Amino acid sequence: MNQPTEWNEVGEYIIAHALLLAQYSETPSMMMRTYLTPAHHAAAQQIAAWMQEAGMTIRRDAIGNIIGRYEAAVPGAPALLTGSHFDTVRDGGIYDGMLGVLLPIACVAQWHSAGRRFAHAIEVIGFAEEEGVRFKATLLGSRALAGTFDARVLENEDDSGMTMRDAINSSGLGYTVDDLPGASYRHEKVLGFVEVHIEQGPVLLNEDLPLGVVTAISGATRLMVDIEGMSGHAGTVPMHLRRDAAMASAEICLFIEQRCQNATNAVGTVGEFNIPNGATNVIPGKTQFSIDIRAEGDVERSTIVHDVLLKIEEVATRRNVRALVRKTHEAETVPCSVRLQKQLKAALEQVGQPVRYLASGAGHDAMAIAALTDVAMLFVRCGNGGISHHPSETMTVQDAALAAKVFARFVEHYHH
Amino acid sequence: MNQPTEWNEVGEYIIAHALLLAQYSETPSMMMRTYLTPAHHAAAQQIAAWMQEAGMTIRRDAIGNIIGRYEAAVPGAPALLTGSHFDTVRDGGIYDGMLGVLLPIACVAQWHSAGRRFAHAIEVIGFAEEEGVRFKATLLGSRALAGTFDARVLENEDDSGMTMRDAINSSGLGYTVDDLPGASYRHEKVLGFVEVHIEQGPVLLNEDLPLGVVTAISGATRLMVDIEGMSGHAGTVPMHLRRDAAMASAEICLFIEQRCQNATNAVGTVGEFNIPNGATNVIPGKTQFSIDIRAEGDVERSTIVHDVLLKIEEVATRRNVRALVRKTHEAETVPCSVRLQKQLKAALEQVGQPVRYLASGAGHDAMAIAALTDVAMLFVRCGNGGISHHPSETMTVQDAALAAKVFARFVEHYHH
Repeated sequence: MNQPTEWNEVGEYIIAHALLLAQYSETPSMMMRTYLTPAHHAAAQQIAAWMQEAGMTIRRDAIGNIIGRYEAAVPGAPALLTGSHFDTVRDGGIYDGMLGVLLPIACVAQWHSAGRRFAHAIEVIGFAEEEGVRFKATLLGSRALAGTFDARVLENEDDSGMTMRDAINSSGLGYTVDDLPGASYRHEKVLGFVEVHIEQGPVLLNEDLPLGVVTAISGATRLMVDIEGMSGHAGTVPMHLRRDAAMASAEICLFIEQRCQNATNAVGTVGEFNIPNGATNVIPGKTQFSIDIRAEGDVERSTIVHDVLLKIEEVATRRNVRALVRKTHEAETVPCSVRLQKQLKAALEQVGQPVRYLASGAGHDAMAIAALTDVAMLFVRCGNGGISHHPSETMTVQDAALAAKVFARFVEHYHH
Repeated sequence: MNQPTEWNEVGEYIIAHALLLAQYSETPSMMMRTYLTPAHHAAAQQIAAWMQEAGMTIRRDAIGNIIGRYEAAVPGAPALLTGSHFDTVRDGGIYDGMLGVLLPIACVAQWHSAGRRFAHAIEVIGFAEEEGVRFKATLLGSRALAGTFDARVLENEDDSGMTMRDAINSSGLGYTVDDLPGASYRHEKVLGFVEVHIEQGPVLLNEDLPLGVVTAISGATRLMVDIEGMSGHAGTVPMHLRRDAAMASAEICLFIEQRCQNATNAVGTVGEFNIPNGATNVIPGKTQFSIDIRAEGDVERSTIVHDVLLKIEEVATRRNVRALVRKTHEAETVPCSVRLQKQLKAALEQVGQPVRYLASGAGHDAMAIAALTDVAMLFVRCGNGGISHHPSETMTVQDAALAAKVFARFVEHYHH
């Protein structure tokens, strides 16, 4: 494919390459590219080839990240980092992650063909693993790079019983798990990290805006709740004598919804809800459901979680059911660098775009890289109601072009 | 076992025989005796032996019912019918159904040893099938006897793929399905039907009463509801842009509860609730749940169902989700005969017991027999919160004795 020369061509390059890369899937019936599978290796090789075509030198690290470096005017200067992940969820979309790899490649290709170099190097990183599908551990690529990789997850097994340790040692990358510490960057060699990513939500779409500047990656608390009431015959137990686990749970669900509606920049979700051995004519004696609460600020999130726990206690007492609550996950909010946000804002203004700040409710590689250096994110509108992790995930050539233009302005005017 | 002679011994006889019969189970680890299995046949033979010991002549009919007749003073006189079922649910209790077979046998044994006969015959029927476990069709025994057996269910298959037709033809009872019409009784040969059954609920237990007179077997409406909203990322879709199928469903659940709490003698249950492919971090796009509504009166039940349907429509419109409602079952209320209720009341008063009228929320053989003759039911308190269809189903010797005493008074003073 020819290197793009005009912004619209840059947009077309990005979309076309996302489609090309989508061919590297574990199964032709859906998009699925999980960590260190043959499809995953093939995608990495394809990305490496495109990076080379765009004028970068390439290397892979021990975790499997593919890294392209576009050298600075003075070779060996510190680098501005960018990138995102090239693994996918099961039956996912083709832009989630990939946009943040392909867009910088397209921009570098332009600078390269124009013979343009900067005071800083640019490193484009295709992170090998972010989604956590194969080994139930997320952000493997970015954590290895940031030096925060947790070696305990090496014992995690995939569905076939293979450990992550064995998968890495036999990956053919020429590394073993002992080389993982060497994948981390030294702080003084990097200037910052900016990740371009589709929004994966409907906010920009709904406001008719192509781009947004991320203020923070929202923290999240996940709980698993077991309610135990008393099972009974649906016909013979009068309403006032029931200890119905499902009704208690429904009341808690609606409280979560209402509490988050009344908060600012917070969301609450009950994504799993089971009545074990439920039957039409049996009053549920047990239920299990998940709670996922996210907020832009840690204080707000903690307050909401506290209120939900109080409500669970109140409902359990009033309805004479037992509630067992386990915390299954907690992540603090990762704020984006104000310095980098300002430079993204300036880039948006230069191309005549309004500046919409928003928090990211989804996790991203930038979360992990924040342990290494300042991070920022540029969100790009996606279509179809903002759906992601789904085959109908989509975005336009125009938005890709505009995002590339803003990213290029940001890099070209970058100052430390 | 010796025939009982005192009321406390009658109670002991009933409990002891229920325990003996519990040995006839398809598996030793739980109570399970489904239609025409070897355990079911063996139980029928055991019941027949006890009926004979108690002074009855016995026969089996084409559906597999076991019928004992205690002849009238004038042989061939019309019979007062009683009985219940001897099949069970999976992992059920040992009194559900069986109480209504064993209690009359114990009473007949007393009359027989005292040489006492009445103007009417007494027929004790062990109905072969009521629960509907094996062939997903209920009340087979009582429907065959009432002449309302639906021949279409003969094609229903069990889990092994055997049809009910084949099961009956190869049952060893000496009948084929062509003989089923012959199992029905002629109206003029019967005076009425009274079924003694554990309450299977907590009402009597809660009011410290051993016995109750059933006014009606409540009608029931069952619905299956599919809600379709829009799936989305739990972190990225703001609350006001969600079309969350689970929250819509929770709101409907709580309405059902509140609506039935505000009704008299009505109950509403959501026994099944699924989020297909639910995940902690995904807003539910789809849910499916069941609704079971029962009321003592058909008008009240219809009104509640109507209100629930209106609520579903209102919630769907407001939340921008689609609701698909299917009616999966509807049964009208079967009223018990006022004439027979009065005679049960008189019998209770004779033994110094208060008269508590209550509706039955569960279905019983009496429902089907109502197509043949007047029906009545005597409910007996069960323990452990009123639990049934469960191994912890229980009742006391004292309550069994008292129920037998009331039943005996009822039969002895029966007038048409």
